[in-house]
Amino acid sequence: MTNLLLKNVRPMGQPATDLAVVNGRFAETAPPNAEPVDCGGRILIPGLVEAHTHLDKSLLGLPWYRNEVGPRLIDKITNEREVKVSLGLDPRIQSERQSIQSIGYGTTHIRSHVDIDTHHGLAGVEGVLATREKLAGYVDIEIVAFPQSGMIIRPGTVEKMDEALSLGADIVGGLDPCGIDRDPRAHLDAIFGLAEKHGKPIDIHLHERDALGGFSTEEIIARTVALGMQGKVTISHAFCLGATDRAYVGDLQAQLAEARIHIITTAPSSAPVPAVMELRALGILTGAGSDGFRDTWGPYGNGDMLERAMYVGQRNNLRRDDEVEMALDICTFGGAAIMELADYGLAPGCKADAVLVEGETLTEAVVTRAPRKLVLKGGKLTARDGVCVLTAP
Amino acid sequence: MTNLLLKNVRPMGQPATDLAVVNGRFAETAPPNAEPVDCGGRILIPGLVEAHTHLDKSLLGLPWYRNEVGPRLIDKITNEREVKVSLGLDPRIQSERQSIQSIGYGTTHIRSHVDIDTHHGLAGVEGVLATREKLAGYVDIEIVAFPQSGMIIRPGTVEKMDEALSLGADIVGGLDPCGIDRDPRAHLDAIFGLAEKHGKPIDIHLHERDALGGFSTEEIIARTVALGMQGKVTISHAFCLGATDRAYVGDLQAQLAEARIHIITTAPSSAPVPAVMELRALGILTGAGSDGFRDTWGPYGNGDMLERAMYVGQRNNLRRDDEVEMALDICTFGGAAIMELADYGLAPGCKADAVLVEGETLTEAVVTRAPRKLVLKGGKLTARDGVCVLTAP
Repeated sequence: MTNLLLKNVRPMGQPATDLAVVNGRFAETAPPNAEPVDCGGRILIPGLVEAHTHLDKSLLGLPWYRNEVGPRLIDKITNEREVKVSLGLDPRIQSERQSIQSIGYGTTHIRSHVDIDTHHGLAGVEGVLATREKLAGYVDIEIVAFPQSGMIIRPGTVEKMDEALSLGADIVGGLDPCGIDRDPRAHLDAIFGLAEKHGKPIDIHLHERDALGGFSTEEIIARTVALGMQGKVTISHAFCLGATDRAYVGDLQAQLAEARIHIITTAPSSAPVPAVMELRALGILTGAGSDGFRDTWGPYGNGDMLERAMYVGQRNNLRRDDEVEMALDICTFGGAAIMELADYGLAPGCKADAVLVEGETLTEAVVTRAPRKLVLKGGKLTARDGVCVLTAP
Repeated sequence: MTNLLLKNVRPMGQPATDLAVVNGRFAETAPPNAEPVDCGGRILIPGLVEAHTHLDKSLLGLPWYRNEVGPRLIDKITNEREVKVSLGLDPRIQSERQSIQSIGYGTTHIRSHVDIDTHHGLAGVEGVLATREKLAGYVDIEIVAFPQSGMIIRPGTVEKMDEALSLGADIVGGLDPCGIDRDPRAHLDAIFGLAEKHGKPIDIHLHERDALGGFSTEEIIARTVALGMQGKVTISHAFCLGATDRAYVGDLQAQLAEARIHIITTAPSSAPVPAVMELRALGILTGAGSDGFRDTWGPYGNGDMLERAMYVGQRNNLRRDDEVEMALDICTFGGAAIMELADYGLAPGCKADAVLVEGETLTEAVVTRAPRKLVLKGGKLTARDGVCVLTAP
């Protein structure tokens, strides 16, 4: 492996310096054989962390899909299950396409929810597992076994989830225990049961709003504490924490902090969202993700986690530079902490997963979102000028 | 003037055809001397309409401004008035820089609010007037005389507004009659008085929320009707129309429709916004704008009105293709209708103000926001591959 000397580089926007990469990790000093890389005074940040996406369902690379779907969540779920068949969507190819696009934007770690249902079985998980193996060394992929179509309303799904976790899925997923499965007790008992059986963490989608989402949150907290799973449970979306009754939300958040439950937001502009500054003030680990993009749910999104940091900032009305830097921290160190990434960061000894970005300051890098000059994964060049070195299928 | 034959072009995403430009206007047929322009099957849309921005206050081209401003509206107003002095901001240069950036993104028409206060007097208006003259033929600029620091609380401002309107400002601006001036009757009487005196329309910033903004809206409606100014008054932002009490909002909207008052939104993700589908269903003309960007208020924004169409779509949860096309319509025909642009569009006889965009469909063009291949203003090439033919100062 080539050792590197990153010259004239500004780690986290600090004054320019030289940074050594030895055996794929940042190091105090470079050996004489290190290859110099002129960074032109650009800012270096650690690899962007995509903490919530859906690699199996993007339509990237296909002819434009004209969206004429109905307004309800269940309309979108049903439509997607059918369109996967009519388009012959291949989760292996789609996940590879999306991952390669993400690498071009500087993402080095991805947590992907992957659909599991009685119609498509484990096809999604098998496809993303194949992509994970193929792209090893370019991007790290975590797989959440995700019952997108419900578990209790579709008997046989829990068994498929169980198989997926045996097959290599890392995390137990879940979805709106009231809103989709209409049986919060059965839904939550099932996913916590799977987590206990496989010794794996949980990351549950919770779109339920206001008191309904609050109720589900309390039930998640209760099970987390009862099973001693503090620090191992994440709630994605958590729209209920964006409720207008801030006293009620404050109480919920205090309980979440005590149970060490993490929050991942996609900072959508059309739904209530958790207030990230409040979460961070309480010590709740907070990450961010693109959610699914360019899929049957909607046309928006591209996997750019600098753009996502901008969305997090805009949605939370973060205007000061220190606040925008916090939004970026959520898209880097925040997600990394939730994913318990070892050796993440720019310090000596950390894995050299990093991105060279354009801008005078971190905030300028976030708001301009210029093509990434260079992306490193374990000290290896994986993208240049916004384009991954790998070619998408 | 060179006549053109745009070859292999898809107007509004329709099947490919050839389009003639004769004497700066779209025409049924091209004369033999028309210069052929290969459009490569790309989509042509009419020039993007930036219906709400602040050309005088961008910090484009200056060293990065580190934002450490307080949270209240008045903090930002006060800070800006002071920073203009400390940075020696020149409204002529800044407005030229921003306009040229906007042209690169395909904007052909801009409505700019321009600050007027007792400290800076008419410096902003004079600067933007100079830019308007200099960029004539590249972009059309409308100037709103805007009392950013309040009128009633800063005596002498109304007189400066009056001077600005005599000097060439096209529209009477206003700002939060309750929230800033703390005297809605005096504020509204002043701006409607100026409008009547100069025979000019009104475009008032209204950030006031819920019942407060509703009260101001009712007062605006009453004066609009009393003075017979139907069709000549615009409310920008109108956050009160994003209130959760939809019955109350519905009643307000019905009154706005009857008074033919227009709405311009910037679709921010951190504030309540008017529901654009409801407005359009009521026949209320609806436009969109970038608002100020890269200024002392915050770091976000770039003047890209395709990106703004995306924000309008995201904020209003528009996911279907027909809905995203409506968001784009707001950023083109919607703003054009409010600005009463003559001969706007792609039909024969319309001025050849148009943008060649990338994408298989209009929706793909909006969500990808790729650099604009070509921008025409009155049949003249003003930008290519995202870059204006003019160089910013």
